[in-house]
Amino acid sequence: MRSFEENLRLYAQLTIKEGLGLAVDQELILSAEIDQRPFVHLLVEEAYRAGAKNVEVLWKDPEVIKTRLRDGSDAAVAYAPTWLYDGITQAHKDGAARLGVASSDPQMLAGLSPERISISSTAASRATKATSELVSGFAINWCIVGAASVDWASRVFPDLSATEGVTKLWEKIFMASRILEEDPLAAWATHCETLESKVVYLNGLKLAALHFTGPGTDLTVGLVEGHEWAGGRGYSKNGIRCSPNIPTEEVFTMPHRANVNGVVSSTMPLSLRGQMVDKIRAEFKDGVAVIVTAGVGQSAFENLINTDDGARRLGEVALVPNSCKVGQTGTLFLNTLYDENAACHIAMGASYSENLTGIDDMTDEEKLERGANDSLIHVDWMIGSDQIDIDGILGDGSRVPLMKSGEWV
Amino acid sequence: MRSFEENLRLYAQLTIKEGLGLAVDQELILSAEIDQRPFVHLLVEEAYRAGAKNVEVLWKDPEVIKTRLRDGSDAAVAYAPTWLYDGITQAHKDGAARLGVASSDPQMLAGLSPERISISSTAASRATKATSELVSGFAINWCIVGAASVDWASRVFPDLSATEGVTKLWEKIFMASRILEEDPLAAWATHCETLESKVVYLNGLKLAALHFTGPGTDLTVGLVEGHEWAGGRGYSKNGIRCSPNIPTEEVFTMPHRANVNGVVSSTMPLSLRGQMVDKIRAEFKDGVAVIVTAGVGQSAFENLINTDDGARRLGEVALVPNSCKVGQTGTLFLNTLYDENAACHIAMGASYSENLTGIDDMTDEEKLERGANDSLIHVDWMIGSDQIDIDGILGDGSRVPLMKSGEWV
Repeated sequence: MRSFEENLRLYAQLTIKEGLGLAVDQELILSAEIDQRPFVHLLVEEAYRAGAKNVEVLWKDPEVIKTRLRDGSDAAVAYAPTWLYDGITQAHKDGAARLGVASSDPQMLAGLSPERISISSTAASRATKATSELVSGFAINWCIVGAASVDWASRVFPDLSATEGVTKLWEKIFMASRILEEDPLAAWATHCETLESKVVYLNGLKLAALHFTGPGTDLTVGLVEGHEWAGGRGYSKNGIRCSPNIPTEEVFTMPHRANVNGVVSSTMPLSLRGQMVDKIRAEFKDGVAVIVTAGVGQSAFENLINTDDGARRLGEVALVPNSCKVGQTGTLFLNTLYDENAACHIAMGASYSENLTGIDDMTDEEKLERGANDSLIHVDWMIGSDQIDIDGILGDGSRVPLMKSGEWV
Repeated sequence: MRSFEENLRLYAQLTIKEGLGLAVDQELILSAEIDQRPFVHLLVEEAYRAGAKNVEVLWKDPEVIKTRLRDGSDAAVAYAPTWLYDGITQAHKDGAARLGVASSDPQMLAGLSPERISISSTAASRATKATSELVSGFAINWCIVGAASVDWASRVFPDLSATEGVTKLWEKIFMASRILEEDPLAAWATHCETLESKVVYLNGLKLAALHFTGPGTDLTVGLVEGHEWAGGRGYSKNGIRCSPNIPTEEVFTMPHRANVNGVVSSTMPLSLRGQMVDKIRAEFKDGVAVIVTAGVGQSAFENLINTDDGARRLGEVALVPNSCKVGQTGTLFLNTLYDENAACHIAMGASYSENLTGIDDMTDEEKLERGANDSLIHVDWMIGSDQIDIDGILGDGSRVPLMKSGEWV
């Protein structure tokens, strides 16, 4: 059995090599919270060993963010430093890759004003839209990986001590990311090939819609014509093969922004902008979530979907079997990177351009007309469980069972 | 007696109010090392309470810097992220103030290649030149303050434990910055008035040159015609009164870049780009340091003064009595912010435009002709001690004794 340090090193290597596919002489912009120094140091080392031209670490300090939301003036809360975000956009246009290390306390902003959080998040989304589009448009190679923090672990394992909690959360992260396999990089590649074969199968079906049924859910998600399924890894437009999420268990495609109907209920809590949201129920009519309630965090979720017109519509639908590697950990991570890879999910907001062939040649109007969705936000929420069945609906109305009780048919 | 926490809070208030004079709705860019969270959190809090529009903390991690110098390719070492520095310049042009928290290990980069350090430093200086000019030209309000770190304290107090060392270094920092006075902000104001009266006296003399004599030193520093002495606090061009250094004990002015002659020896070690330099001896001829040796760190100092033509010339000369508040701490800080405020010093490299009236209306050629110096660098080194005498030389060649044995006459 390998030591924690050996596994952490392998995890850093998996991230730089398979997650990002970082190229020689490529710059890397790395975002991480300030308590993640040990893992970030390994990432920086592996990046330079892979030939990085520069690794710019943008450290985020939760205390600084909280102080601003608590003590800042209204003008401060509504402000975002465009000089910084414009610089980051420029770096990505010049070829820089992007890596995010996710380790936040799922309730980081609990107790602060949901309205101030919303104003601040929307300002930041607006200021980072150009960068987000480079990412969602797959113009660059990018990756998000998780890292255990004391605050996060204490939410997932409230009964354990800080040290025990962090140790256990790292174990779960390693398990979910296939780091505990004999050769993690090879295991990752094999896993991605499995996902790719699923993508090929689903693309072959040329589905018109997906139909989700289960407790509190009877939802028909129309898919855009010419949609592409994606999953595992892909080639970004700068020609680099990368795996944007570690772990990843999903195959996903593009819903039609005006063709989603029915009712759907969340199956897991959701950490949204540092606040907990749970027991979401949404009724969709012609693509729009017209009635939305949440048993927990109603105002946080409402503020989110009121961001813009596209925030009440879907930008992604994803299929994940419950028995997958992340599901096998038996852990509710309270972090979307993990939880969305343990259950089928949908996302409010912007769609991914890799899910529609030819989208880069379309005008904004054509994109909307075809059914692609545009929004400042993209927020996944989990709707899958072992009680959910999913049928594919073909153009002639006939059905192909895809999942039964949360597993592939 | 106040607690450490109370003193730290007062120190943060002194920094934001007197050091920066931060204005309502002004943005603040704050650079600090990653282990300075407790003090930075207070600074951020005080800045928002003062009405800051945003506090953008640029955290620096010594490990990331070292990894780049050690494992980075030659291209990586020679690269600087202009997308970031251009953004920072834009923020300052749009009115952002700048705050630096100095806490580095004086020997942070010891053992790494001096050549790689030099290449990297020069690339960074080039990329940050526009920002440096806004600072040295006093276009914005700015301030540098110190903060004790474990690594720094271990160099200053090698015989103490980590905890004892940090505690003692904070005591010295508080003492030097007048935080231990009953009303630190009032004491700071009174002190600045004392420095201002010295500035008025020296400006009245309209000196042609300064003559330093002492062990290993016989140096005549010609001053530019129309030079202005400065010290304590001043008004930046955005109309804000600030104290760019905390502590500050110096009054300083502009040497003539082509009119410095004689020999000068350093009186304290110098931490230069994370490397120790000591026992510097320089012979100046017509402004140029033609022969330079250093008993310790020769290559680091040589690389520095080979940066460009102006790096071998002086940009600042400063007078500090040995008995001042920083000197009273009896501590060799191995950090220029403190050591330069305990001894007379000179600086290789760029001059400060506040030291020459009318400089903003001059072309670059006129500035050089008048004797102002231009360079990518500005590095102070200490030449004062209780064995140094300084005379002012008037236009007619007559002398005014200014300092005897390191004290004002």
